[in-house]
Amino acid sequence: MATLKVPAQVPSPSEDAEQLRKAFVGWGTNEDLIISILAHRNASQRKLISETYASTYGEDLLVSLDKELSSDFERIVMLWALGPPAERDAFLANEATKRMTSNNWVLMEIASTRSSLDLFKVKQAYQARFKRSLEEDVAYHTSGDFRKLLVPLVSTFRYEGEEVNMTLAKSEAKLLHEKIAEKAYNDEEVIRIITTRSKAQLNATLNHYNNDFGNAINKDLKSNPEDEYLKLLRSTIKCLTFPEKYFEKVLRMAINKLGTDEWALTRVVVTRAEVDMERIKEDYQRRNSVPLDQAISNDTSGDYEKMLLALIGHGDY
Amino acid sequence: MATLKVPAQVPSPSEDAEQLRKAFVGWGTNEDLIISILAHRNASQRKLISETYASTYGEDLLVSLDKELSSDFERIVMLWALGPPAERDAFLANEATKRMTSNNWVLMEIASTRSSLDLFKVKQAYQARFKRSLEEDVAYHTSGDFRKLLVPLVSTFRYEGEEVNMTLAKSEAKLLHEKIAEKAYNDEEVIRIITTRSKAQLNATLNHYNNDFGNAINKDLKSNPEDEYLKLLRSTIKCLTFPEKYFEKVLRMAINKLGTDEWALTRVVVTRAEVDMERIKEDYQRRNSVPLDQAISNDTSGDYEKMLLALIGHGDY
Repeated sequence: MATLKVPAQVPSPSEDAEQLRKAFVGWGTNEDLIISILAHRNASQRKLISETYASTYGEDLLVSLDKELSSDFERIVMLWALGPPAERDAFLANEATKRMTSNNWVLMEIASTRSSLDLFKVKQAYQARFKRSLEEDVAYHTSGDFRKLLVPLVSTFRYEGEEVNMTLAKSEAKLLHEKIAEKAYNDEEVIRIITTRSKAQLNATLNHYNNDFGNAINKDLKSNPEDEYLKLLRSTIKCLTFPEKYFEKVLRMAINKLGTDEWALTRVVVTRAEVDMERIKEDYQRRNSVPLDQAISNDTSGDYEKMLLALIGHGDY
Repeated sequence: MATLKVPAQVPSPSEDAEQLRKAFVGWGTNEDLIISILAHRNASQRKLISETYASTYGEDLLVSLDKELSSDFERIVMLWALGPPAERDAFLANEATKRMTSNNWVLMEIASTRSSLDLFKVKQAYQARFKRSLEEDVAYHTSGDFRKLLVPLVSTFRYEGEEVNMTLAKSEAKLLHEKIAEKAYNDEEVIRIITTRSKAQLNATLNHYNNDFGNAINKDLKSNPEDEYLKLLRSTIKCLTFPEKYFEKVLRMAINKLGTDEWALTRVVVTRAEVDMERIKEDYQRRNSVPLDQAISNDTSGDYEKMLLALIGHGDY
């Protein structure tokens, strides 16, 4: 469930655009006004505001935001205003293939937690914006075991029906167990099963694994807890089967880190606020014995904090 | 250019459906009537006929055809009537992953010669019909080097713009040449370049290869002419850059073969009649010094021959 709160009476896109323009011009910038508007409009409403703003003031809303805002607050507002989720994901994925901002986790996360059709839309948006395919950029900028896992992961168009073949689940659970027992973590059969099977089928396979061999697969994949490839493999499995648990952990790590990982915090809040942030908040509180909004308040400040809290549905609205 | 000939005045779908019904009932089957209708309607017209037939006679057109026709003529009419190209490709691809009819060439051909969006539609049709993804079936039913090439080939959503990065083309041509010189034909870099780059980019890379190293890449890939993987790799490159040459060769081999390969002949005629069969016919005549329709006439007979000739636009209409 989403945490985004939209008012019962939404102002027209031209009223919103006008208010935003007011927030930008004159003495200083009115950050509270920006938050009160943008943090309470859904993706299609933001799209309309953006279009109206551009046609009324002859300037892209993102350009105005870029001029007026800075640092973490700028990044969260820009990502939020960037357009439909597919546009934002395409932007994040592209950043993740660039040398200075390369990030296998972001690629894995986008490929594994979006629906098949949403991932396809990300690929279309990626091509329209960058004039290359997501697949070629991921393949070009990764190497070794990471490439072996990530390229099929971003390429595949997974089936999403609920049909499950239990015989296959049993035999593939056995196959996974054999390979893992041999420490063949990058074996092509392991990668084939994880990157091509439907989430329902994979879930059945992993249940068989757990029942037939006594451990959850991710426990067996912890032989070397600091191995970066194994970490990514475990997270992929988590994203495909329990995405909210994965996101809870990313938030936990981002907040607990000395100095806070604002990029991760921003990314999860912005990409999940309209999807399953309610569920992630529940898991967060259960796992950390502190509500997410309180943890965020303790760790962040100013307009950045306000924007985060608004997006996770903090307080009355 | 297509070879399909559609009359200037097309009868209504219900007239066509009625005529087809007449061709099925009573003494024997009127094959000429079936050909005169179906072989002269385009994909969307056939779809309407099919829908009208089903709603009027309470039976799927394919079921009626299956009852009335047999052998090679049955297969070509069924494949032609099967529905939009994506449905037919999904059917052919599924056959190609089955044990008794497995065929890596068909998978490669569908993945490499369809547009990115058409390939995506094949994947959607595949999932709707078979309740699994094309990717998982291909990955499950292939192995070794064939899997290494085919899985990314069917998975990728290639960029289709004309933009070409010449610096990249030069460096990737060099990389391909190095790997081929080492006989590392299944090297992951070779496969990455072939399976992820846009057709325009790949073409630029292969031109550089030819200019900088003195041979066309497919010549350098002929070190062991009978190696099945190398054959498939060469054909993939041909499909991605000169599809009509590839199809000419499939037709040539199918016709020259002792006993004729009707499956290949049918497949190429049915899948290209509405796309580029005119061009393939030109290439065929140039390469074989005999027109394709004459070669087909010499090698086939009866209703099957008539249907093939109608689809390649033989004679006046």
